[in-house]
Amino acid sequence: MKKSLGAKTILHPAPALVVGSYDGEGRANVMTAAWGGIVSSKPACVGVSLRPSRHSYDAILGRKAFTVNIAPTKYMREADYFGLVSGKDADKFEVAGLTAVRAEQVDAPAVEEFPVTLECRLRETLEIGVHVQLIGEIVDVKVDEECLGEDGRISMAAVDPCIFSPVEGRYFSLGPEIGKAFSIGKELR
Amino acid sequence: MKKSLGAKTILHPAPALVVGSYDGEGRANVMTAAWGGIVSSKPACVGVSLRPSRHSYDAILGRKAFTVNIAPTKYMREADYFGLVSGKDADKFEVAGLTAVRAEQVDAPAVEEFPVTLECRLRETLEIGVHVQLIGEIVDVKVDEECLGEDGRISMAAVDPCIFSPVEGRYFSLGPEIGKAFSIGKELR
Repeated sequence: MKKSLGAKTILHPAPALVVGSYDGEGRANVMTAAWGGIVSSKPACVGVSLRPSRHSYDAILGRKAFTVNIAPTKYMREADYFGLVSGKDADKFEVAGLTAVRAEQVDAPAVEEFPVTLECRLRETLEIGVHVQLIGEIVDVKVDEECLGEDGRISMAAVDPCIFSPVEGRYFSLGPEIGKAFSIGKELR
Repeated sequence: MKKSLGAKTILHPAPALVVGSYDGEGRANVMTAAWGGIVSSKPACVGVSLRPSRHSYDAILGRKAFTVNIAPTKYMREADYFGLVSGKDADKFEVAGLTAVRAEQVDAPAVEEFPVTLECRLRETLEIGVHVQLIGEIVDVKVDEECLGEDGRISMAAVDPCIFSPVEGRYFSLGPEIGKAFSIGKELR
């Protein structure tokens, strides 16, 4: 029996995306966002929705660039902190003891210790209610070599991302692999 | 040491979103999409990117409605199948042995057996490269009662969603809860 919960932002799984930018004074900043995902395959684009009141919002519009860093469970505490405090009030990299490194392809900082960084050039913005979706073209993805399998592909298990549960407000880790995509469904065809 | 992988659509975790719609002939159809996520809190909105060549694309634009059904691991095989075959060529509900039920609030079918359904009214579309992002206002969320905790909130562990790994092409299940969001980061403040 299904129950109606009303108009809620429930979608499982949600990511914990750590978005990096340089603000107007050139300071490296990061914030954590859960409203985002890939929005196109070609060109490769990612969308991240921010409220315009966020310190990162003006920063990203100013330099037309941002990074998306995938928070591994090892840095769950730091990623959560990045969503609690504004870059107006604190040097979040310093407080968290993490390292800002300039991305190679875009004018934004990456989190050195995080295993995956998407380097994004701001392509367009779309106002949707209280949020503005920032659509970034992914110009490069940088991955820790330890997260690459023998075939050179990235391994999600090795990345070990924080998985966020909206409404519930909890983080989970990744469970075991359960099947091959574009394959297991063929049994039904 | 980080390695450059080029412009790739890597983002972890990604969902397996089963999108329901009625086509021009009134037939219930479903397809699986991984490029999507919540895009605004108020009004609650979800974005799902489809290629315009997809059978579901015209269907959704025609009725200005769709559902997003969260695929549980129990139905991984069915969700994978929904992404392999076009609704032009098969009655996917029938082949999969699943039940299409009309959503209460919008003109689109839900997957009865799946634990969570977002009922969405098409709000706008945005062309991004080869994909078009369909932005739906979530007018209601229907959840199986067994997926609600004692506090009436949805439990992601009970939903047991399929987690998709782009590039790798693999499904994973959810791992254990590891921390409370908007809380564990306070230790650093």
